[in-house]
Amino acid sequence: SFSRGMQTVTLIPGDGIGPEISAAVVKIFDAAKAPIRWEERDVMAIKGPGGRWMIPPDAKESMDRSKIGLKGPLKTPIAAGHPSMNLLLRKTFDLYANVRPCVSIEGYKTPYTDVDLVTIRENTEGEYSGIEHVIVDGVVQSIKLITENASRRIAEYAFEYARNNQRSSVTAVHKANIMRMSDGLFLRKCREVAEDYKDIKFTEMYLDTVCLNMVQDPTQFDILVMPNLYGDILSDLCAGLIGGLGVTPSGNIGANGLAIFESVHGTAPDIAGMDLANPTALLLSAVMMLRHMGLHEHASKIQTACFDTIKEKKVLTKDLGGSSKCSEFTAEICRRVQDLD
Amino acid sequence: SFSRGMQTVTLIPGDGIGPEISAAVVKIFDAAKAPIRWEERDVMAIKGPGGRWMIPPDAKESMDRSKIGLKGPLKTPIAAGHPSMNLLLRKTFDLYANVRPCVSIEGYKTPYTDVDLVTIRENTEGEYSGIEHVIVDGVVQSIKLITENASRRIAEYAFEYARNNQRSSVTAVHKANIMRMSDGLFLRKCREVAEDYKDIKFTEMYLDTVCLNMVQDPTQFDILVMPNLYGDILSDLCAGLIGGLGVTPSGNIGANGLAIFESVHGTAPDIAGMDLANPTALLLSAVMMLRHMGLHEHASKIQTACFDTIKEKKVLTKDLGGSSKCSEFTAEICRRVQDLD
Ligand SMILES: CC(C)[C@H](C(=O)O)[C@@H](O)C(=O)O
Ligand SMILES: CC(C)[C@H](C(=O)O)[C@@H](O)C(=O)O
Repeated sequence: SFSRGMQTVTLIPGDGIGPEISAAVVKIFDAAKAPIRWEERDVMAIKGPGGRWMIPPDAKESMDRSKIGLKGPLKTPIAAGHPSMNLLLRKTFDLYANVRPCVSIEGYKTPYTDVDLVTIRENTEGEYSGIEHVIVDGVVQSIKLITENASRRIAEYAFEYARNNQRSSVTAVHKANIMRMSDGLFLRKCREVAEDYKDIKFTEMYLDTVCLNMVQDPTQFDILVMPNLYGDILSDLCAGLIGGLGVTPSGNIGANGLAIFESVHGTAPDIAGMDLANPTALLLSAVMMLRHMGLHEHASKIQTACFDTIKEKKVLTKDLGGSSKCSEFTAEICRRVQDLD
Repeated sequence: SFSRGMQTVTLIPGDGIGPEISAAVVKIFDAAKAPIRWEERDVMAIKGPGGRWMIPPDAKESMDRSKIGLKGPLKTPIAAGHPSMNLLLRKTFDLYANVRPCVSIEGYKTPYTDVDLVTIRENTEGEYSGIEHVIVDGVVQSIKLITENASRRIAEYAFEYARNNQRSSVTAVHKANIMRMSDGLFLRKCREVAEDYKDIKFTEMYLDTVCLNMVQDPTQFDILVMPNLYGDILSDLCAGLIGGLGVTPSGNIGANGLAIFESVHGTAPDIAGMDLANPTALLLSAVMMLRHMGLHEHASKIQTACFDTIKEKKVLTKDLGGSSKCSEFTAEICRRVQDLD
């Protein structure tokens, strides 16, 4: 049939510039003849039975079936009590690993070159447990929860990722000198898992030391694995090294292959609908997605076309230093994708 | 008398390269005729009554009297249960504000120029409360404690610092989108205090966003104020931007003018006693100390001599890219200090 070998992906275009950059990705995938059938869904939370916020059932059902999502930026709803959509998605689909490759992009100048690292963030617990109390007036506690299972799971993910991607080292990032029990547990699990991956070098480093070393020489790092909040911080820091969230892909990985890939920049409401947005972050997230699905050839072709477009500097969106429209940048990548055939 | 106008400073030389770099600072202060009388003390914790670790009484007594300390690096004792000396000092003297000016040093090349910011870190609570529990097997919680009083105190310190140092803006760094109650309380206090300082611009920014913006353009920041752990991270990150811990001064400020200034690098046991250490971080911390004591002229003279020495690049220690000994670098600064008279 027509859809023979086609795989379904749940497309969550998102808000603001989301629809434009999603359309750009769809165009480029068409040009690359990527065997993807898109199933578009809106994930904006609704109030379910018992007043609990939840992903709309048709979006949830699509993701459960397709197992793969591609997601643009979502606006943060201002309704009282409405949850962060990012957190709700991570929770709903138990997306326990947040993976962000940070690779210097030739032709896009930053103070750094040859950055090539991956941050792997525990995405479900830690400082994001959401448990907080007022102890007495003027005294608040927030609880950071670290479990053996989640720590082992993310450590295993990091080492598997290293092995499958021909990476040579994993660094566990922690503050076990201060949070001896919680970060201590995280670190212990990393050490244990490291024992099973003798082919991968394992090191440990304090978060503050990582930050200092990172801005001095990011090329010393390879795979970094860490608890939730540290990953939030380090992944943004690393994105900054290579040019910001406009060019940084991200993947949220769950069990049994389920995963949502997303651009992590905002909705940029000021330029929404004006054909000015830069689709690179979402496109590179979609490339990660293709790799995750085993479609390596399509992934490489699209990535090459994107990087070549940026390197040549002729057709670039404003934020990349050019004056082209989103549609022109997209068309240029499509042209190159087709030339690569 | 001979000591007319002299002020006493408790000198804590520390371990490893600590004694060498302390001696260098003392030499340079002599050359600058700084009216300081040094009272040398060892602070390495001892077990007090009831088995509690404490600062030796004569060191505590000296600090209580002089109110001002200058401290080299301390080794982390390996005795079981022995506390981090840094944490013990902060606690013993209620040093609630950690202040780190990060200023680009002319002649010492990093990817950044014109950095001129100050991180102000709450130094007593937050993630450093030390309260942790095993909930059930494999599940650990660490408690982050945020209080109204400590939050207001550090916010007030930041705004006072801004005003007294002709700074124009204060940015509160937080993750109140995640830790709504604890970071929310911190942020609320910052906002309240900001009301009393209409001459200072107040902004708020997520920690992850600060990290990203910081590595893209640190010149956009001025004063940053934040809870304990975020300060630990950001201060090291910022130190990295200007050349690392070897050139970054630090001050720990308590109530009633009590303060300890310190270099935050390690003890470098590999080069200890070899006359190879770089005294810059401790010297610039001592310059901060002079300013804190109101000795602005001596501070400026020493700072100028130090920066000129680095700018000229003729007499530099190894880590600064030269081949001179600590004593030669020190002598060069002394020579310049005397020339400035
Ligand atoms: C939007 C916010 C809840 C989120 C986080 O803090 O995790 C974001 O910063 C991210 O990194 O995805
Ligand atoms: C040594 C360690 C306890 C300390 C901290 O984490 O605060 C250090 O990193 C610092 O910044 O002074």
